[in-house]
Amino acid sequence: MRPIVECIPNFSEGKRKEVVEAIATAIRDVEGVRLLDYSADQSHNRSVFTFLGGPQEVMEAAFAACTVATDLIDMTSHKGEHPRMGATDVIPFVPVKDIGLEECIQLSRELGERIASQLDIPVFLYEESASRPERKSLPNIRRGQFEGMADKIKEPEWAPDFGKAEIHPTAGVVAVGARAPLIAYNINLDTADIEIANKIARLIRERGGGLKNVRAIGVMLEDRQQAQVSINMVNYQETALYRAFEMVKYEARRYGVNIVGSEIIGLTPMKALIDVAEYYLQLEGFAAGKQILENYLL
Amino acid sequence: MRPIVECIPNFSEGKRKEVVEAIATAIRDVEGVRLLDYSADQSHNRSVFTFLGGPQEVMEAAFAACTVATDLIDMTSHKGEHPRMGATDVIPFVPVKDIGLEECIQLSRELGERIASQLDIPVFLYEESASRPERKSLPNIRRGQFEGMADKIKEPEWAPDFGKAEIHPTAGVVAVGARAPLIAYNINLDTADIEIANKIARLIRERGGGLKNVRAIGVMLEDRQQAQVSINMVNYQETALYRAFEMVKYEARRYGVNIVGSEIIGLTPMKALIDVAEYYLQLEGFAAGKQILENYLL
Repeated sequence: MRPIVECIPNFSEGKRKEVVEAIATAIRDVEGVRLLDYSADQSHNRSVFTFLGGPQEVMEAAFAACTVATDLIDMTSHKGEHPRMGATDVIPFVPVKDIGLEECIQLSRELGERIASQLDIPVFLYEESASRPERKSLPNIRRGQFEGMADKIKEPEWAPDFGKAEIHPTAGVVAVGARAPLIAYNINLDTADIEIANKIARLIRERGGGLKNVRAIGVMLEDRQQAQVSINMVNYQETALYRAFEMVKYEARRYGVNIVGSEIIGLTPMKALIDVAEYYLQLEGFAAGKQILENYLL
Repeated sequence: MRPIVECIPNFSEGKRKEVVEAIATAIRDVEGVRLLDYSADQSHNRSVFTFLGGPQEVMEAAFAACTVATDLIDMTSHKGEHPRMGATDVIPFVPVKDIGLEECIQLSRELGERIASQLDIPVFLYEESASRPERKSLPNIRRGQFEGMADKIKEPEWAPDFGKAEIHPTAGVVAVGARAPLIAYNINLDTADIEIANKIARLIRERGGGLKNVRAIGVMLEDRQQAQVSINMVNYQETALYRAFEMVKYEARRYGVNIVGSEIIGLTPMKALIDVAEYYLQLEGFAAGKQILENYLL
């Protein structure tokens, strides 16, 4: 069993193809790392990369990508719709297999230390790696964006976790952290009334007294004329997908509304779907690690 | 994507530990092969091994195991409850990943040819590899057992697929073939009346006008005082697990009986459970190959 970590860094470049490709190459060049996907958004002027590998290899690739971004992106001339504070904006580590959140937090600390000392960029630890509660939230750290960061970082409560209280002149600052895998999960309703989706979203989410580890909003699918409950499952191990599905189903019932389907957007760990199958089949004593053939090949 | 084949050979030795270990060692010694499990049954005087790997590696391991069994097992003095016809009794190949049944059939032919020519043991192709309909069924081929095989093999309709019409004096004959993955799946009922489980089993199975690719019998779980519908799903890709579960549920209803749980015995391919999750979550457009993280690691 070899531990596998996922890394999904965001960079402040979505227009210049050659820069995005240079970052992709830096990641690909690290042996033992698999770049699954990357995409650039022109109006956000931002790109996101998804790669997997062993903890040390993934950290190596994240550092290599951050080095390239530091060389090629100048934040003093950056424009884009998405809030941002650095050439490398954020680097999250996610445990995928045979590794815990604790080890990913440790990995984020090591990378942060290295970015600060070798690239001279101040680093904030965020999410599960945060050194104080108010730094858990990335938007909190990023408030003021690149332009405001030179002053903000000098305030004692915003001293960086690694590096000097002085932004890198062109690369700004970086947030590094660990978080549990997030599953983007949407449930489509047989109604065109977005208010119903909004009401259900407010009921099922943690903030509304609903399910822990669930964030949700209502969204209108104009082309299908269906309202959708758009959900982020931020800890599928503690709060399984079927629980959101069943709760949406019974909350929709009071409006005479039914589920027409659901969607998983992007990637999911296998275990999130195995848990669903176990629930609905009422499986007794199933040991996924030993009974699923593919687990012997990983 | 590298193709993976499973092989589950049965040998006519369940008492002498050193023979079982010698077979295990022969399999383990082939690079690229993973021996998942093996077990020996004293009263059956029989052992079964489960291993995985690339097609050529798996064939190599099967041949190595068969060679050891040929050297160490003498069928002229073999006694055991389970029907058997050779030192190596049967070698099935099962496609696991990125390989089809066709290629496993080809693999079984290559191995059969090799066993006949190098070990001088006549080989019958069975299941999906069978050269005639009456050879699909292993019990059909094995009828008469080791003791009757010397005469049976001389009948024109039982000429072996590879090798001479003459049994190996101590190793008998071998059946080699390919089959789809089989999932042993049991559904437990809240009744102690085995007749109800029998009736449901007869209704849901292919022979009884029920689901294709489903074999089922009623079984009594004495310790739990629950009747069970014990099922073999012989093609989960064509007939998914949830279809058996839902059919048992609605057939049980006429007796006022409910499902209390179900069990998967032994190994299952991941996909069999992903299909279940897709059904119950009403997933739209889910692409397991691209959306399940682990698939990038295989």
